[in-house]
Order: sequence, then structure tokens, then C-alpha cells
Amino acid sequence: MAIDQSQSYSIGVDLGGTNLRIAAYTRTAGLLETILLPTRLAAGRIAVIEDLCGAVFDLENRFSPRYRLTGIGVGTPGPLELPAGRLHNPPNLTGWDGFELLKELETRLNQSVILESDANLAALAECVLGCGLTMGIDSLCMLTLGTGVGNGIILNGKIWDGAAGMGGEAGHATIYPDGAKCPCGNDGCLEMYASATAVVRTANQRIAAGAAPLLAGQKWSARTLAEAAFAGNADAKQIYTDAGRALGIGLAALVNTLNLPLYVVGGGLVQAWELLKPAIFEELNHRSYVYRLTAPGSPVANNNPRGATHVLPAELGKDAGLLGACILPFTADERSLVPVEG
Amino acid sequence: MAIDQSQSYSIGVDLGGTNLRIAAYTRTAGLLETILLPTRLAAGRIAVIEDLCGAVFDLENRFSPRYRLTGIGVGTPGPLELPAGRLHNPPNLTGWDGFELLKELETRLNQSVILESDANLAALAECVLGCGLTMGIDSLCMLTLGTGVGNGIILNGKIWDGAAGMGGEAGHATIYPDGAKCPCGNDGCLEMYASATAVVRTANQRIAAGAAPLLAGQKWSARTLAEAAFAGNADAKQIYTDAGRALGIGLAALVNTLNLPLYVVGGGLVQAWELLKPAIFEELNHRSYVYRLTAPGSPVANNNPRGATHVLPAELGKDAGLLGACILPFTADERSLVPVEG
Repeated sequence: MAIDQSQSYSIGVDLGGTNLRIAAYTRTAGLLETILLPTRLAAGRIAVIEDLCGAVFDLENRFSPRYRLTGIGVGTPGPLELPAGRLHNPPNLTGWDGFELLKELETRLNQSVILESDANLAALAECVLGCGLTMGIDSLCMLTLGTGVGNGIILNGKIWDGAAGMGGEAGHATIYPDGAKCPCGNDGCLEMYASATAVVRTANQRIAAGAAPLLAGQKWSARTLAEAAFAGNADAKQIYTDAGRALGIGLAALVNTLNLPLYVVGGGLVQAWELLKPAIFEELNHRSYVYRLTAPGSPVANNNPRGATHVLPAELGKDAGLLGACILPFTADERSLVPVEG
Repeated sequence: MAIDQSQSYSIGVDLGGTNLRIAAYTRTAGLLETILLPTRLAAGRIAVIEDLCGAVFDLENRFSPRYRLTGIGVGTPGPLELPAGRLHNPPNLTGWDGFELLKELETRLNQSVILESDANLAALAECVLGCGLTMGIDSLCMLTLGTGVGNGIILNGKIWDGAAGMGGEAGHATIYPDGAKCPCGNDGCLEMYASATAVVRTANQRIAAGAAPLLAGQKWSARTLAEAAFAGNADAKQIYTDAGRALGIGLAALVNTLNLPLYVVGGGLVQAWELLKPAIFEELNHRSYVYRLTAPGSPVANNNPRGATHVLPAELGKDAGLLGACILPFTADERSLVPVEG
């Protein structure tokens, strides 16, 4: 079968602490096929890399006869050092400290790979395929509320990697200087107040302190807490309000610092967007004069819609990171084009 | 006299709440001549603009016969809306709310003007002529500790204006969520802890509360407090330590968010750099794992010096804003070249 040179495809990999997802993608058809594997951390990092590369080869065998391979994008939990592609004590990949992930992947795949941190790729996907596309905006800051709080910044359509690949770690900006101890070493990080882990920890602490009688006697997850809050449980509602407050404080600082047109809140916890929203906007209005001047409906926004500041829940859901890995080869400036034999 | 077309000059204006400075500049000779005027706020904004334009015409009459005018750069206190060039209730230019500064300047000067906020121009100057030049780095974040805390962000040699000209207002990032009320409407802004105003206010509050006996019975300025601290006054030292702590908390969030190679601390208060420094670096090391991974001497920095994070006192002193206005026409992408009659 002849290759349709007009159709390029990419392979994207979302390497998570629990799941490993590998997909083939074209800009016209989206995800052609997705392979889902468990991340076998207990088997060691080489076993995980072998699983990953095996799935990439499977997809190449399947799709390279039909389309031209543009490149391979891989998203990994951080901290990731770029351009070296080296991991530094990643909390979600225990035992991978110092691992030369990029070198290992390129050696085994025998071709170039573009590596990025997963939160940056979720932000890229929201920019190109999600909220950014909907709003016609190509710069945004995304906070991904999951086990932790990921962050990615896209400026003029490009991921802001920073000097060493560690741009977009605002999940570890200090919200409460004397607050809860974060595994990153800091006290009072945003991540300690606005992640799924954080709302469950807060619930347990309040139950233990007798401060959340409406939650007592039950084991909670972020999801069941949100359901209880939506059903009217005032103690559950308060927990989401407090998470929204921390998010609003963090977002206000980001708005004042960056004045981007779009801030996106994603990750599992955003299913509770309606619970988080009132406190987020209360804090934004209180704490960011840049927000007040540029919020939709403000004089600045009315005069110049491109100068308006939007804060929105993510559109793409849990595929954001994988989609970001897939579109990375299409958007990267300096990507190495992979030659394809006809 | 024939114009030396090989020599371009610019005119830069630093419009402050107290002083108005207008200078002619070439890249080879630096500041050719500087006109210093008081900012006659009491006479009304049109009087100030007339003073400004009069000085620009003076310099043009002097230097346009000799050099080619590249453009006119003007720095103003913010909040400044761009590209409109409109002021929004600037705290240092009382009564100028809604003033169409750019339009007024261009009409009266009958030529294009490039307008920027003063803190952004100080950052540009430090990048092109100060710390950035010394370090061979073209991206930085600068905090200017003066009456307030100004901020400017330079990415790849360009000012990051943001969507509406309000990028770089990290002086109003929240440090202590329940902290001192800021005129911007927020509580606990960096500006409320790390400005010249803030250290004097803190001293007065501690004296009144009996918490700074070594300072009692005297009227203090930021300068005399620094002198007392350098001379060993423990209460004065503590005030600068606390200011450095707030700065460190703010810088740690900026490092985690932006991962820039250079953070510059400038403004009058930086004369007390040695007093601020220990707490700044203590907080950075405690609160930013990105800083710890990339600080000079870290493995990342040793492997890749371009990935290192530097935090330095400014080099340019009080001329930074004026110099930034002067170099703006040479660095702006979209500047309108001003035609010069021969």
C-alpha cells in the first residue's frame, strides 16, 4: 500500500505513575488507536520502557504503511530536565531519579523523540484542541488538579519550558506560608490545598478534629466528597470552597504575573468546578486588579476582547495529556523529522 | 551638518510621579543628554504632557541634525492598558484614570511613540545593559523595590506585556493571604512587605507595639533603617530579614512558575541587598525545588550552565527605567520608524 504523504500521523505516549497510554494520531481523524497498559513500576524502569517501546513499534507497524510518521511525543511526570531529558526524583516514578529517559527512549526506538512533562502537554492540548481553540486564543496557563496540581504555560502557541525544562510548576507556589508540608519540601503549596489528595486529607483532618460532623463515620474520596457537596452536605461543600479559595489565591498571582488571556482548570477535581467556582472568582476579584480590569465585561475587555482574561474549566478531560503528546510533533519547532521508507 | 545615518539615536522618557526625565541615547555613546524636570501633577496632566513634549522637541532639535532618530520610548507608572496606551487609575499619577496617554503623546509629538510600564523598562534595561548582558542571558524577571514593588518579565529579549499590557505585576502576588491591606485591593501583596514604604511602615508598627525597642524614639526612612541594620541594630536587621523573607517567598513562586535563568532585584531598597540576601536564599532553597535543582552548583547547573537559575541585585541603579525607555525603540519589533528629513 502506498503512503499517503498528505496525511501525517504522530505517536503520542502518556507515561503515568499508574497507566501507560500510547496512541497514533492524525490531525484530521484524531486518535486512530490507543494502547492502554499498566505502568509496571515494580518490574523496574527498563521493563516500563520496554512496554512503552513495544507499543510504539506496534503502532508504527500498523500505521507507517499508510501514513508518514511526523514524530513521537512522550509526556512524563516531572521534574524533567530539558533538553537533556533527565528525570530528577519524580514523586510519581519512584526509583527513577537521574534516569536518562530521553536517551533511553531514543536508543531503543532508534529515532528522535520529543519529551515533555505531562502537565505541559495537557496545557498544549487544551490550547490547540480545547479551550484555546474554542476561544481563538493561543496563550494560556493550565492547572491540572489530580493527585497533585500540575501546571503548564503556553505562550504564543508554544510550551514555555523555561531554562531547564521546569517552567510551569505553579502547583508548588506558596499559598499559605505556614501551611501544610508538601513532599516537594515547601510548606503551603497550592498542591496541598487544591488536589484530589488535598480535599481527602482535609476531610479526614476535619473529621478527626470533630470539625466536620456531617462527614463523620465514612471513608471519602474526592469524588464522593463532591457528590455529597452537590447533594447539599455543608461540610463537604466547605472543603471544596476552601480548595477553590486556594486556587483563587494562586490564580490571582498568576494573572497578575502573566496577564494571559486564558487560565484553564483541569484534572479530575474539575468535575467539581461548580463547587470550586464561587471561591475562585471571589478571590480573583479580591486579589487581582489585573483580573478586575480585564475580566469579561470590564471596560478593557469591552474595548479589546483580545485583552480579556478568561478562567474556564478544561474541555478535554483525561485524554488531555495523551492528546498533547500526539500533537507535540506537529507543533514543535525543532522537531527532528523521522524519515519513512516507502 | 549631514546626518550620520550609521548612528541612530533614540529619545527615552521616564515619567514618574515625582520626576520627569527625558534623554537622548545612542547605542555606542549611551545617554547623550538627560533633561530632568519635576512632574507637575498639581498643574494637571496636560501641563505634564506639555513639559514632556517640550523636552522631546528640545532634544530632537539638538540631535536630529546629527543622527537618525530611531524612535521615542516612554515609560509610565501603571496600570497601563496596551496596545491602547490608556492608564487605569495609576496610584502614582493621581487623577490620570482613563487618560489616553499614547494618543495624547502621538498627537502632540506628531510621530509614533512606544509606550511601556516603567517596571517593564527597568527589566528590559537590566536584560540588555545590566545583569543580563553580564551573564549572557536574554530572559529575566525583575522586581524593583521602591515606593511599591514593580515587576517586569523579559522572555527571549522581549518584554512580556501579556494580553492587555499588564504582564509583570508580581508585586501584587499574595504572600500572606491574611496580611496587610494593599491599595490595589488585595491583602498581603509582596509590595506590602518588600517595598521602601513597607519597611518604614513595619518599623513604625513595631515601635508602636513596643516590639522594636532599639528603634524607639526616632523617625526612620528605609535608608536610615538600613544604615542602623548595617551598624548592628538587631531590630532594624529583623525588619530587613522579614522583607527578604517575603521576597524569597515571592521569588520561589516565580522560579517555580517561570524557570527563568535570571531574577534581578532592583530599586532603592536593593542597597540593603546584603541584609535581604540571607532570608531570600533561605526561602528560595526551602520553597522552590526548581531552584534547588538549578541553583549554581547544582547538578543541573553543572551539566548545563544555560539551565542554571541566578538571583542577583540589579546593576543599573536608578537610571534603569530611563535606559529601558531609550533602548525600547532599538529592541521593539513593531516600532514605527520615524522618517527624518535630511
